[in-house]
Amino acid sequence: MPLPEPLVRLVEELQRLPGIGAKSAQRLAFHILKTPREETDRLADAVREVKERVTYCSVCNNITESDPCVYCRSDVRDQRVICVVEEPQNVSAVEKTREFKGVYHVLMGALSPLQGIGPDDLKIKSLLARIDNGVAEVILATNPTVEGEATAIYLARLLKPLGVRVTRIAMGVPVGSDLEYTDEITMQKAIEGRREV
Amino acid sequence: MPLPEPLVRLVEELQRLPGIGAKSAQRLAFHILKTPREETDRLADAVREVKERVTYCSVCNNITESDPCVYCRSDVRDQRVICVVEEPQNVSAVEKTREFKGVYHVLMGALSPLQGIGPDDLKIKSLLARIDNGVAEVILATNPTVEGEATAIYLARLLKPLGVRVTRIAMGVPVGSDLEYTDEITMQKAIEGRREV
Repeated sequence: MPLPEPLVRLVEELQRLPGIGAKSAQRLAFHILKTPREETDRLADAVREVKERVTYCSVCNNITESDPCVYCRSDVRDQRVICVVEEPQNVSAVEKTREFKGVYHVLMGALSPLQGIGPDDLKIKSLLARIDNGVAEVILATNPTVEGEATAIYLARLLKPLGVRVTRIAMGVPVGSDLEYTDEITMQKAIEGRREV
Repeated sequence: MPLPEPLVRLVEELQRLPGIGAKSAQRLAFHILKTPREETDRLADAVREVKERVTYCSVCNNITESDPCVYCRSDVRDQRVICVVEEPQNVSAVEKTREFKGVYHVLMGALSPLQGIGPDDLKIKSLLARIDNGVAEVILATNPTVEGEATAIYLARLLKPLGVRVTRIAMGVPVGSDLEYTDEITMQKAIEGRREV
């Protein structure tokens, strides 16, 4: 005799989430069954509310509760420097440094011919539309992966003719790591990117 | 500048789920943000509905949409043989064999002094209450772990004086495995439990 239908449905919905397979989905569903009602209601409400209250900034595509986002409407951020990232969560990674005082542009992905993601699937047009005489520099902070690198090269070709300074974040050995365990491509990038001391 | 508050709340709620850490919770939350509204509504509804429609059988504690559950109210199942398992999901594991035709009793856990789970935290009293002259056999199918084994031994001591046949599922080498990779305790159980051929 099969599992109750609402439980089967919950397992199916959980399985759609990234990194959750059939076994994890079943484990989570049984956990939810065991959990007090208030707590599971909070989870269901949180899912609904995040969709209701959080949207994307119409300028930079970062996630925000109000449009434009805090960065785009800020007086203290340098609106002349745009840091380009792949996903909204990458904005947090840059913010954590407390070093960057410019604004952002979220591409919502990276070029990936294998996954059928081309330039028109990314927020590239709206990036180009933001480049005017006021913009001094575009920092390409796409991921240090094949896709991120290809996207950075593609964007650099489009941006340079517009007369803006285009830079790419440095790739090299991560701070605190051990050279012994550094892969050869990272090591190669570290040597390529060496600087005078 | 921090993440929007509804997103932070969703991350917190997701992190309460078993096996979901801070990083996974954030990844899931951003995925939910990106997912179309219909799909995330289906997830939220599934969570609510499972709590509304699925309850525990008042006889055997298995999950069910109607009380008593399909096994306990069945005419074709042998109500004289009770298979004792730790969790509702273990019922599915036994059912998959299509061999067992008796009924179940779900303990809702196993004895674990380390986690502070004693006999009163498990559905042991209701198991003992089910044992009458009609019951021919109790099969102890708790997990082959330290906790499951301790629970089985504890239950056997309580059940045997009631004049019922008490059995324990066999432990040994799993079918399709390789002796080379069998751990020593499993191998020991396999030898202890050897049978005439």
